[in-house]
Amino acid sequence: MDKRAHRYCVIMCGGIGSRFWPYSRTRLPKQFIDFLGTGRTLLQMSYDRISSIIPAENIIILTNERYFDLVCEQLPEISKENILLEPARRNTAPCIAWAAWHIASRDSEASMIVTPADHVITRVQEFRQSVIEGFDFVESHDALLTLGITPTRPETGYGYIQIGNHTEGNISKVKTFTEKPDIELAKVFLASGEFFWNSGIFIWTAASIQSALRKNAPDIAGVFDSADKAVYLNKKSEDDFIASAFPGCVSISIDYSVMERANNVFVETVTFGWNDLGTWSALYDLSPKNSEQNVTQNCNVLAYNSKGTIFAIRGEKLVVVDGLDDYIVSDADGVLLICPKSREQKIKQMVTDAKVKFGDKYE
Amino acid sequence: MDKRAHRYCVIMCGGIGSRFWPYSRTRLPKQFIDFLGTGRTLLQMSYDRISSIIPAENIIILTNERYFDLVCEQLPEISKENILLEPARRNTAPCIAWAAWHIASRDSEASMIVTPADHVITRVQEFRQSVIEGFDFVESHDALLTLGITPTRPETGYGYIQIGNHTEGNISKVKTFTEKPDIELAKVFLASGEFFWNSGIFIWTAASIQSALRKNAPDIAGVFDSADKAVYLNKKSEDDFIASAFPGCVSISIDYSVMERANNVFVETVTFGWNDLGTWSALYDLSPKNSEQNVTQNCNVLAYNSKGTIFAIRGEKLVVVDGLDDYIVSDADGVLLICPKSREQKIKQMVTDAKVKFGDKYE
Repeated sequence: MDKRAHRYCVIMCGGIGSRFWPYSRTRLPKQFIDFLGTGRTLLQMSYDRISSIIPAENIIILTNERYFDLVCEQLPEISKENILLEPARRNTAPCIAWAAWHIASRDSEASMIVTPADHVITRVQEFRQSVIEGFDFVESHDALLTLGITPTRPETGYGYIQIGNHTEGNISKVKTFTEKPDIELAKVFLASGEFFWNSGIFIWTAASIQSALRKNAPDIAGVFDSADKAVYLNKKSEDDFIASAFPGCVSISIDYSVMERANNVFVETVTFGWNDLGTWSALYDLSPKNSEQNVTQNCNVLAYNSKGTIFAIRGEKLVVVDGLDDYIVSDADGVLLICPKSREQKIKQMVTDAKVKFGDKYE
Repeated sequence: MDKRAHRYCVIMCGGIGSRFWPYSRTRLPKQFIDFLGTGRTLLQMSYDRISSIIPAENIIILTNERYFDLVCEQLPEISKENILLEPARRNTAPCIAWAAWHIASRDSEASMIVTPADHVITRVQEFRQSVIEGFDFVESHDALLTLGITPTRPETGYGYIQIGNHTEGNISKVKTFTEKPDIELAKVFLASGEFFWNSGIFIWTAASIQSALRKNAPDIAGVFDSADKAVYLNKKSEDDFIASAFPGCVSISIDYSVMERANNVFVETVTFGWNDLGTWSALYDLSPKNSEQNVTQNCNVLAYNSKGTIFAIRGEKLVVVDGLDDYIVSDADGVLLICPKSREQKIKQMVTDAKVKFGDKYE
C-alpha cells in the first residue's frame, strides 16, 4: 500500500487570535480571514499547502465547536466527519492527543503532521519537500519531530530550538528549547548557526505521540485511553465521549507537556519562508511596504507625515492620517484601535478592559 | 401694529462645514447634525433660540438647493415658502441681498436678524434680550448692527471688532474690524477692553441693508434691483429669476462688501456664551472633558496614555487608543481621520487630496 495513504494532517484552528484584535475577533479569528488579500483565508492556505501531499480524507480539522460553520464554509472539500470540535479550550496537548487517538483508532500505521492554521508559509514547494522528508524519518524512527526554521534575523518574538547531534539529512536531535530571547541573545543565536525558530509544526506517528503522552502526560493520555477504540470510530459515540471527557483535561501545551520532556525529540531544519503571524509587528514585517514604510491591509489610506504604520481596515473605508509613526490602525466590526506597535503586547489587556467596561459585544 | 410682526430672522445654513470633515460632509454638513448630543441639530437649535421672539412665518431659511429636504425634515414648522434655495454658492453678500429684497417686497417696515445656523450659543435668554435691544436700535436708526461678543480669552481663531464712540445702551460705533490676531496681539486686545469677537450675526432693517448694498456693492444690488417687487412675491417667478440671476453674482462676503466699507456700522457688545464651531479645536474647547482632558463626541472610548484628544464618531463604535495626545479622531460614513489638532488647518486640503485620489464619494 502506498505510504501516502497512512499520512494524516491535523490542522489546528481553534484560537481566537486576540493579539490581532479588533481585526481578528472571537467570532471571526484570524485563521478564517483573508489576511494577506490573496483571496484565500489562512485556513484555506493551510489546506492548499498540504492537500497535494496528503489525501483529502486524511486531513483533520481541529477547532472549537463555535467555528464549525466557518470551517464547513471555507473548506467544503473536508468531510464533516473530519472536523473535530473541541467543547472547551484546553491548549494544544489535549487536542493533539484527541487527534492522535482518533487517527490511531482508524489506522494503526498512521503518521501525522500537526500544524496551526494561522501561520504564513512561503516557498511552498520547499515546505512540501521538508514535510515528506519528515514523514519518511518518523515512519522509520520512534521520533517526535519538530520543524526548525532557519533564522534570517535576530528575531526576539520566537522561541528557538538548539540542535544537538546530527542524525540524518536535515534532521538532528534537539538539544534545548529556549524561550524568546532578548535582542543580544538573539544575535548570538543567529551567529551560532545552532539555533532555529520553533515553528510549532510537528510530525510523528500516532503511535509515537500516544506513547510519549502516556509517558510524559499520563493524565491526558489516561482520559483518551479510557474510551475503547470503537468509541472513536463512531461520530456520535466519539462526540458524546469528548463532550464529557474533554473539559476534564488539564489545559497545557504540547511543548511543555511532551516536547520539553521526552528524550526522542528531533528537529528538521528547514529553509522555507515562515512567519507565525503572532503579532501586528510580525504582520508588518512580513508585508510589502510603500515608500513611507507604511503597510496597508486591504484599505485606502492617505498618510501625511506618517511612517512605519500598519493599517488593517475591514470594509470599504478611507483612512486619512497625519503624524502617526509606527502605529497600528485597525478598524473592523465596530471597533477602532489606534496603538503604537511598541505597545502591542497590551492589546490583550485592552480587549479585557473593553469587555469589563462595555460587555462582550466587542470581543 | 405690534413691532414684532415686522421682525424677521434669516438663518443661513448653506455651508458644507469641510473643516469638520469627515464628521461633517457635503451631503450632511455640521448644521444638520446633532453636534452636541442634545437631541437637536445646530439648525434646530438656531430655530429654537429665535422662535420665541420672531413669528414663525417671519423666519427665513437660506440654504443651498441640495439641502431642501434636510431643512424640511428638521424644521417642519417652517413653511416651504420661507426656504430660499441658492442655486450656487456665492458667499454671504448675494444671499443676504436676496433675503433683504425678498423680505422688503413683502414688508416695507421690515427689520431682520441674519445669523449662521452652525454656531453654539449659551445663555439663550441673554441672547434674546440682546437681539431685542438690537432690533429696537436699528428700527430707530439707519444702522448696520453687528453683535460683538465680549471676549473671555485671548482667542486667535476669531476676527475682532474694535469699538468706537459709545452710542447708547450696549451699542457703539465700530472703529475697525480686524483679522484673526496672533496670540500676543490677542492678549493686548483682551486686556484693552475695546475689542470684541466678530460673531457674524447682523441686525438691520431691510431698507438699511438694501441702501448699503446699493452704495457699497452696486453690482450685487443691481442684480436684485433688476427684478420688479412682484417677482419676489411669487414663488415661481422668484425661483425662475434667482435661477438665472443668482449665479451671475460675484462671490463675496457681506463683511468685505459692506460692513468694512459703510459708515453707519455699529456694534452691540453682548455677553452671552458664543462659539462659532469653526474648527475641531473650537469644538474641543467648548466641550466637557474627562480627567485626561479628552473629549468624546457621542462615542465609547478607551484611552490609554492619551490626553487632549477629541473623538467624534458617528454610529455605534468602540474606539481604543494608546499614546495619542492632542489629536482629532473622527470616523463617519466611510472615512476615518486621525490628525493632530495642531494641523487641523490642513483638513480642507486632505478633503481635496482624497477627492483627487479616490473620487468624490468621500467628500
